[in-house]
Amino acid sequence: MSYTAPVNELRFGIRVHGRLDEVLQLPHAEGLDAETVDAVLDEAARFASEQWADTNRTGDLHGAGFSDDLITTHPDLARAYYDFCEAGWAGLRAPAEFGGQGLPAVVSAACEEMWCAANLALSLMPMLTLGAVDALFKHGSEEQKQTYLPKMCSGEWAGTMNLSEPQAGSDLNHIATRAVPKENGAYALSGQKIFITWGDQEMTENIVHLVLARLPDAAPGVQGVSMFIVPKYLVNADGSLGGCNGVRAIGIEHKLGIHASPTCTMEFDNAEGYLVGRAGKGLAYMFTMMKTARLNVGIEGHAVAERAYQNALAYAKERVQGRDEADGSDDVAIIRHPDVRRMLLIQKATLAAQRALYLRAAALTDFAAACPDNVLRKEAERELDFLIPIVKAWPTDNGVVLTNLAVQIYGGAGYVEESGVAQYLRDVRITPIYEGTNGIQAADLAGRKTTGKNGALPLKLLAEGKGLADKLAAVEPAAAQQLAQAIETAEQSIARMVGYADRPALATAASNAYLQQMGLTLGAIGLARAYLAAEAAQAEDADGFGSGFYAAQQHNARVYCAHVLPQVYACAAQIENAQALLDVPLELY
Amino acid sequence: MSYTAPVNELRFGIRVHGRLDEVLQLPHAEGLDAETVDAVLDEAARFASEQWADTNRTGDLHGAGFSDDLITTHPDLARAYYDFCEAGWAGLRAPAEFGGQGLPAVVSAACEEMWCAANLALSLMPMLTLGAVDALFKHGSEEQKQTYLPKMCSGEWAGTMNLSEPQAGSDLNHIATRAVPKENGAYALSGQKIFITWGDQEMTENIVHLVLARLPDAAPGVQGVSMFIVPKYLVNADGSLGGCNGVRAIGIEHKLGIHASPTCTMEFDNAEGYLVGRAGKGLAYMFTMMKTARLNVGIEGHAVAERAYQNALAYAKERVQGRDEADGSDDVAIIRHPDVRRMLLIQKATLAAQRALYLRAAALTDFAAACPDNVLRKEAERELDFLIPIVKAWPTDNGVVLTNLAVQIYGGAGYVEESGVAQYLRDVRITPIYEGTNGIQAADLAGRKTTGKNGALPLKLLAEGKGLADKLAAVEPAAAQQLAQAIETAEQSIARMVGYADRPALATAASNAYLQQMGLTLGAIGLARAYLAAEAAQAEDADGFGSGFYAAQQHNARVYCAHVLPQVYACAAQIENAQALLDVPLELY
Repeated sequence: MSYTAPVNELRFGIRVHGRLDEVLQLPHAEGLDAETVDAVLDEAARFASEQWADTNRTGDLHGAGFSDDLITTHPDLARAYYDFCEAGWAGLRAPAEFGGQGLPAVVSAACEEMWCAANLALSLMPMLTLGAVDALFKHGSEEQKQTYLPKMCSGEWAGTMNLSEPQAGSDLNHIATRAVPKENGAYALSGQKIFITWGDQEMTENIVHLVLARLPDAAPGVQGVSMFIVPKYLVNADGSLGGCNGVRAIGIEHKLGIHASPTCTMEFDNAEGYLVGRAGKGLAYMFTMMKTARLNVGIEGHAVAERAYQNALAYAKERVQGRDEADGSDDVAIIRHPDVRRMLLIQKATLAAQRALYLRAAALTDFAAACPDNVLRKEAERELDFLIPIVKAWPTDNGVVLTNLAVQIYGGAGYVEESGVAQYLRDVRITPIYEGTNGIQAADLAGRKTTGKNGALPLKLLAEGKGLADKLAAVEPAAAQQLAQAIETAEQSIARMVGYADRPALATAASNAYLQQMGLTLGAIGLARAYLAAEAAQAEDADGFGSGFYAAQQHNARVYCAHVLPQVYACAAQIENAQALLDVPLELY
Repeated sequence: MSYTAPVNELRFGIRVHGRLDEVLQLPHAEGLDAETVDAVLDEAARFASEQWADTNRTGDLHGAGFSDDLITTHPDLARAYYDFCEAGWAGLRAPAEFGGQGLPAVVSAACEEMWCAANLALSLMPMLTLGAVDALFKHGSEEQKQTYLPKMCSGEWAGTMNLSEPQAGSDLNHIATRAVPKENGAYALSGQKIFITWGDQEMTENIVHLVLARLPDAAPGVQGVSMFIVPKYLVNADGSLGGCNGVRAIGIEHKLGIHASPTCTMEFDNAEGYLVGRAGKGLAYMFTMMKTARLNVGIEGHAVAERAYQNALAYAKERVQGRDEADGSDDVAIIRHPDVRRMLLIQKATLAAQRALYLRAAALTDFAAACPDNVLRKEAERELDFLIPIVKAWPTDNGVVLTNLAVQIYGGAGYVEESGVAQYLRDVRITPIYEGTNGIQAADLAGRKTTGKNGALPLKLLAEGKGLADKLAAVEPAAAQQLAQAIETAEQSIARMVGYADRPALATAASNAYLQQMGLTLGAIGLARAYLAAEAAQAEDADGFGSGFYAAQQHNARVYCAHVLPQVYACAAQIENAQALLDVPLELY
C-alpha cells in the first residue's frame, strides 16, 4: 500500500487557499520565501512517501503492546520517529527560540497531511508533543520553558495531554484527579486518566505529561481545574534526568484501528507535578491548543482518505474484470466501469474540497497569530473560530465515507486485511470521535458561533462565495449555477438556524445538518476558487504543474458541484424539520 | 452486547408488509395459521436472543483458524449450531418432503433477521446450506435429492457455493476449474476457488459443495459453465460416508469482520463431482438461488444494524455526560442530547423502512413460487425481480451508515473493541460487497430492470405510494406532503433514467443514485403504510402490542420523511448530472 504525497496539490492549495504570498509577509515568516516553502514541501513529500509510508502497515500488524509494565512498539516505528526528528520535522512549526523551525502554520499543515497519510498512528506522537509545546510556550514560566521546550522541540522528549477520566470524557466538569501542594512548591498528583494517546512509550528519553487536576480548595466544575506538568522522569536542575516520577501506564486499549499508537490508562500516584500558569485556568489553557488540535484532527481524517483514494485508484487501474459498457470491449480494468469512476471521482473531488478548507483555516491561524493589523487579525480570529468545528468534523465524517468507498472499489479483496485498505477505514474511524465528538463540534458551530451571532460570519463567507460563483458563470455556467443555488439554500438555512436562537435544543437538533451543509458549501466555494485560479494559471503554468493538473482541478469543481454538493438540499430539509426529532418521547425509542 | 429480537416489529411487519393473511392462503402454506406463525416467531426470538446472541462476540474474539489442514472454530459455535439444528431451525423453509418445515419465505425471512443479528458469521452456514438445498431441489436428479437433501435439511450436512476464482470474481466468464468425465459417470474436478464462506469446517458430518466448473469441450464464457456436486466425503450407496474426496481448504482469509466464519481458499484436485442438471447451465442454476441469496444479504445488513441500534440505545440511556439543553439539568444520560437523539432516531426509522421493504420482497417470493393465479404470480415475479437489487444494496449500504452512527454514540468507548459495537461495523462491511457488489446491483436495477422496460415497474410502485400519501394526508399532512414530493421527484428521475436507455454507460453512471433514490422512496412508502395500519389498529390493538408500539410506528414515518427521505433530492441531481462523471478522462484521476 504505497503512498505518494500529493505535493502538487499541496503547492497549488497553499497558494490558492492558504494565501501563501500574504502569509509570507507576516512577521513570523520573515526570511522565508516561496522557493524555500516549495523545497520544504518537496522534502516532506519525499520523507513521508519513502521513509514513513511503509511503516503504516507494520504498525497495524504489530500494534502497541503492554507487558511487564512496559509499552512495546515495533522497532520500525522508533526508527521512523528518530529519522523524523533527525531531519528536523519534529519542530517544524515550533518556536525558533527553543530550537524549532518556526514555519507558518499553513506550511506545517500541508506537511501534517503527509505525516498523517504516511502513518497516522505514529504522527499522533509528534503532533501531541507540538500541542504541549504550544501550551507551555504560551502559559509556562520562563523556567518551565527553558527546562522542557528545547528537548520537546527537537523531539527528544514527547508531550501528552491527560484530560479524560472514566466519568469525565466529553464533559470535563467531573475531573477528579487531585493535586496536593508539596513543601518544595511542587504538587503531588493522584488519580487516573484514560484514553491517553501515546501516554507511555520507550522511544523518547522523557515524556512531559500535561495533566488536568484539582487543587484541594478548588471550585467545583471546570473553574477548579488546573494544568500541571508531570514529567515521566524528574528533571534535575542541570537538565539531566533524575528518578522515575509517580506516573505510569497501567493498561492499553484494544482498538478498532491506529493500532501502532498505545492508548493508555495512566495512573498518577503522588506524582510530582508543576503548576502551569494560574490555578483554575487549566481548561482555558487547554482551549488555547484546541483550535490547532481540532484542525489537526480534520487533517487526519482527510489524509487517511487521500491515501485510501490513491490505493483504490491504483487497484481500479490494475484489476481486470468485466466489460466496458461504452465500447463493449471485454476484460477491462474496473476503472472503466461507470460506478467505479463515480466512487473514485467523488473521493478525488471531496479531497480537493477538504484540502481547500483546511489550508484556508491553517492560513487563518497564521493571520490570527501574527497579523500586525489589528482589524485584520481580529477578522482572521473570528473566521478561524467559525471554521474550526467544520474543519474538524466535516473531513472526519467524510473520512469514513471516503475510505468506505475505497474498500468498496477493492470488492472482496477490500474485506481482506491483507489488501491494506481496510486499515484506512479502521484508522480513520477515530477521527469523528476524539478531540470533541463531531456532535460537540456541530453544537458549537450552531450555537455560540451562528445563532449566537445572527449568522454574521457564515453569511459573510457565503457572500464571498457568491462573488466567485458570478465569476465562474462566465467559464463554467453549470457548476456556477449549482453553486449559486446551494449558496442561496444555505442562506435560507442560516436564517432558520438564527430563528432557533431562543430554543437551543432545536438548534442542536439541526446542528449536524447545518455543519454538513456549511462544509459542503464552503468546500464548493473553495473548488470554485481553485477552478478560477487554474483557469488563470494554466496558460503560463509558472509552477510547472502541467496542463493536466489544471484540467483536473476544474473537473474536481464540476464533479463536486454535480455529485457532492446536492446533499445540501437534504441538509436544508433536515434543518427545517429539526423539531420532528425532539417530538419523539424518549420512551418510544 | 445483548440482543432482544424485535418480535413485535416483525409480527407487525409480517402482517402489514408481508401480507401474511394472503400468504397463508397459498397452497404451500396449507395447514399453517397466524397463531402458529406467531408461535414460530416467538420461539425464534427466544432462541436468537438467548442461545445465539452471546456467541457473537466469542466468535469474533476467537475467529476461525487454520492449522494442520484443519479449520478450527470455537466450540461454542458448534454447540450453538447443534442447538439450532436440534430445534428444527435449519430446515425452516426447506421442503417438507425432505424433512424441512416448509414454512413460507416471509416467515423464514423474519427468522433470518433474528439469526443474522444474533450471530451473522454463524448464520451464514445454514443460510448457504439452504441455498444449496434450493439448487438441488430445483435442478438435481431424484437420486441426488434422495442422497443429499435429507441430511442437508436437518443441518447434519452443510452446503457451500464455490463460484469465485482469483481471475473470476464479479465476472464469472473466466471460471477455469475443469471437470473431466470419469468412467463411472462422475467427473474429476481440478482447480482453485477463493472466498468460499464456510468452505470447510468440522461441525457437520459432511459438506456438499456446489461447484461451478467447465467440461473439456465447454464453450468459452459463462455458457460453458456447469454445476457439480462435490461432497467433502464421498457418499456410499447406502447413504453412509465413504472416503475423503479430493477437495480441501488450503487457507483462510484474515478479514475485517465476520471472524467466526472461515473464508476459505479451496483446492480441487481430481475431486469426484456429479453434474447437476444439464451441462452449460451452471450459471443459470446459480441464478435461481440468487434472488433468495440477495434478499438474505439485504437482511444481513439490516439485522446487524438493528443490533447495533439496540446497543447504542442502551448505552445512550446509561452513559451520563453533560447538561440537558432543554431543561438545564446537569449530568444527564446522553440520550437527552438532541444530536444523540437524531442518530438514534435515524437508525430506528431507517430500520423500520428496511424491514418493510425486505418483508414485502420475501412475501413476493412466496407469491412468485406458489400463487395459483398465473397473472398474479407473474406480477409478483416481476416486482420481486425489480426489488431484489434494492433489497440487497440499500440496507447493506445503510448497514455501514447505521452501525457507524452506533459507534459514534458510544464515543471513545465505541472505538475500543471491548465495547463490542465496533464489531458490528466490521461485520456489516462485507454485505455491500458479496453476492454481487452493490454497484452490480445498481447496474442491474438501472439497466435491465428500468431503462429496458421504460420504468414501468417503478412507476407502478410509486403510483401505489401516491395512493398511500393521499390517505396519509388526512392524518399526517406534513409527512404526506414530504412523501408526495419525493414520489414526484422519483417519477422525474425515472423519466430521466429511461432517457438514458440508449447510453448504457450513462445509465450506469446514474445507477447508484437511482438505486438509493428508489430505496429511500419505497422505504417511505412502506412507513406510510405502517402509519396507516397503526392508525387503524391502535384503538383495538388485537395483536396486543400496546399503544406505545403504534405511536412509535407513526413517529418512524414522521422522522423518516423529515430526516432520511430528503436525501432523494441529492439523488435526483446526481442522476441528472451523471454525464459529469463520464466527462473526466481517465488520465486525470
